[in-house]
Amino acid sequence: MDTEMKNALRAIVGEENFTDSLIDLIAYAKDASEHSHRPDAALWPVTTEQVSAVMKLAAKARFPVIPRGAGTSLAGLTVPEQGGVILDLGRMDTIIDINIEDRLAVVQPGVVYADLDRALAPHGFFFPPDPASGSVSTLGGNVATNAGGIKGAKYGTTKDYVLALEVVLPDGRILHTGSKCMKSVSGYDLTRLFVGSEGTLGIVTEITFKINPKPPITSTAMATFETLEDAGRAISEIMYSGIIPSALEVVDQQTLVVINENTDLGLPEVEAMLVAETDGYTKEETEFQMEKITSIFEKNHATAVKHAETAEEAAALWAARKSAYGVMARINNNLIVEDLAVPMSRVPDMLRFISDLAETYHLRIPTVGHAGDGNLHPVVCFDGTDPDQVKRVEAASEALFEKVIEMGGTLTGEHGIGLAKIPYMKMEHDEVSMAVMRSVKKRFDPDNILNPGKMGLEA
Amino acid sequence: MDTEMKNALRAIVGEENFTDSLIDLIAYAKDASEHSHRPDAALWPVTTEQVSAVMKLAAKARFPVIPRGAGTSLAGLTVPEQGGVILDLGRMDTIIDINIEDRLAVVQPGVVYADLDRALAPHGFFFPPDPASGSVSTLGGNVATNAGGIKGAKYGTTKDYVLALEVVLPDGRILHTGSKCMKSVSGYDLTRLFVGSEGTLGIVTEITFKINPKPPITSTAMATFETLEDAGRAISEIMYSGIIPSALEVVDQQTLVVINENTDLGLPEVEAMLVAETDGYTKEETEFQMEKITSIFEKNHATAVKHAETAEEAAALWAARKSAYGVMARINNNLIVEDLAVPMSRVPDMLRFISDLAETYHLRIPTVGHAGDGNLHPVVCFDGTDPDQVKRVEAASEALFEKVIEMGGTLTGEHGIGLAKIPYMKMEHDEVSMAVMRSVKKRFDPDNILNPGKMGLEA
Repeated sequence: MDTEMKNALRAIVGEENFTDSLIDLIAYAKDASEHSHRPDAALWPVTTEQVSAVMKLAAKARFPVIPRGAGTSLAGLTVPEQGGVILDLGRMDTIIDINIEDRLAVVQPGVVYADLDRALAPHGFFFPPDPASGSVSTLGGNVATNAGGIKGAKYGTTKDYVLALEVVLPDGRILHTGSKCMKSVSGYDLTRLFVGSEGTLGIVTEITFKINPKPPITSTAMATFETLEDAGRAISEIMYSGIIPSALEVVDQQTLVVINENTDLGLPEVEAMLVAETDGYTKEETEFQMEKITSIFEKNHATAVKHAETAEEAAALWAARKSAYGVMARINNNLIVEDLAVPMSRVPDMLRFISDLAETYHLRIPTVGHAGDGNLHPVVCFDGTDPDQVKRVEAASEALFEKVIEMGGTLTGEHGIGLAKIPYMKMEHDEVSMAVMRSVKKRFDPDNILNPGKMGLEA
Repeated sequence: MDTEMKNALRAIVGEENFTDSLIDLIAYAKDASEHSHRPDAALWPVTTEQVSAVMKLAAKARFPVIPRGAGTSLAGLTVPEQGGVILDLGRMDTIIDINIEDRLAVVQPGVVYADLDRALAPHGFFFPPDPASGSVSTLGGNVATNAGGIKGAKYGTTKDYVLALEVVLPDGRILHTGSKCMKSVSGYDLTRLFVGSEGTLGIVTEITFKINPKPPITSTAMATFETLEDAGRAISEIMYSGIIPSALEVVDQQTLVVINENTDLGLPEVEAMLVAETDGYTKEETEFQMEKITSIFEKNHATAVKHAETAEEAAALWAARKSAYGVMARINNNLIVEDLAVPMSRVPDMLRFISDLAETYHLRIPTVGHAGDGNLHPVVCFDGTDPDQVKRVEAASEALFEKVIEMGGTLTGEHGIGLAKIPYMKMEHDEVSMAVMRSVKKRFDPDNILNPGKMGLEA
């Protein structure tokens, strides 16, 4: 990128919102994945008009533009694979409106998830998706990846709450999609086309979310199972029981071992631990649901069932589940937090397969996941400086995703395709599906300037 | 359409699934709207391959194809505006799979909503959207219009339950979208693009729905209010109260008058009646919510509050709301069941405006609606043989939708654009939005053969 072009970008966003210093470009070469590539410059636009002007320039000069939130992507969504300009939307961070009567919140894309949640709390409302990265990830990023979290089974994911968007298209036009009404079927659902499109179709500059009143009461319990089969039957029976837990998390044996090696939690190293949460308006109702769950745990030979009596006890039960990633990150050079989903009834089979896979390829692959919606996160631990380990990781990943598709699963439940899953796209999507996706990309971004090289959309 | 072409269609679907008899074509010229145009032939395909073969022929010969479910559209979505072939999917009516463990139901498009609901009931599950036409309308039609109903505020609409689709594209290719997993962000969300697209982008031949456990307990109450303002404050305060009623319906004065004139329900002819329902797992929880609602009713000067003690009493409270349309249809030559949505806080203002509008244009416009999500149905009653009345209806409709947009509302909450709302599309959608929608239509259906003339997509 030449000086003239950089000066044109400076002129659009102002000197204070432009950088091409090496230290910044190195930072912007990475996200939370293993991928990396340096951009030519980075901008912090502060208005929709600036974003539009940047895109008009990019469309003319044909340089790549990569929109970015907090950079917490685990699949390389924000890595500037082909260079170009990073558009960091972190300075468009205003909560524009919270309107309880109309049940909506209007925000700029750079607002952090947790900041919106804090702003809603005094009204007794919340924005349910609750991604694990919520304390740092931005709502624009949440929209771009259709972020999910532990509450997915009961409350759905980001897509279920996006009512309307303002989007800058690759040619710089400003598009308004959807409606601020709770219900609208006026025209095509363009909103949903942008949600989860990983910044490849347009740049979201304003979001209108539906918000929910927050059930004030929760109940938490955990159970350990000697065998994956027992845990699997418990998960299935909970689905038949007529209730939907607000969370139902699974932790596998490898994870329990890793946690015990590195904390003093002293967990039983059984094949599976389940942590369940129910919520509601009254204590009686919340306990009614939890009693169903704990009796199903017991019926399926849980070796221990602990029901939290206080908020502190509940926090302690969650500690094991929530400590997993931190512990693993501390003791491994490299981690790939995988992401897949299978039909719920296949969760135990998939956990068994992953355990066998780890053995076959001599890898450590502890797994945690959202059993209530079939979304699992095997964490592949390895040393990236050892070419043999890297080769085994690649082979194991391919075997894993072959099995996922064979089980009727999907390549990604909540992290996205990005760069990480490109090699597997054709396993899940047939030729017609790939052709239609490419055709949509082509229609919106004919010169392939917006986050190019992602999602396997280049034939 | 010449004999050769008709014979080619006969060869695809078989003689027993083809008709061009006058009586059938007259029937297929209409749906539940005021629009009408006769097709050249009608087919009842029984396999996806037949649908694909028909589209391949249509793409070559360039004749219009109009997919159709039960024909309950109130906006002309299935009227063959430009002739061509009606594709009635009513004979593809198999419930392929109900899988409680994986929380899904797989159906052909011709399955009637109520039949799926009946099949789910023994498992304690339901498919929540509950459109008013549910006893006859088909699930394919529900998907094509993104059908909603009285449970929208708490449970959302059809779009919130469609996980995956099989779709025949205008060129005959068979596309598979989405995933049967609860969570997937693998590639673009093509599923949502087809939901609510009114049969203009593809023909849905198989649907995978997410299903929900049905809360076993409900509680019902109604309240009457002397003024719209009191009712409006009650609606807003319910939103602030931290609960979401499973239904919150509003009936206006004109409707109460019409019902009283034609039934012996003897309702008080106040400015507004609200009917509320709460649901849950336990009686205590359901009543906890209902007590919040009834105390808000009382605080806002309800002239009467009735709380149903039994299922029969609840049915009686719903009778007034549910009798409205039948009563109106019986006593009027012509009815247009309008459909609009506004932000919830504007519901009383909109009801006041409609009441004034009826006076200005000397029309009867009783209104019912879903106050819990801002979706209102003014029912314009008139005599279509009186040109002066027709003119007044047209003028009133235009004034109505101008006001809807001014209030931040949307042209349609659940009925769709079809033919009825084409004149108003540009009020809601700016040039960029219209251009993008047209561009999407053009990419999927370059020759404009699939349900042409709908949604205002022809420039």
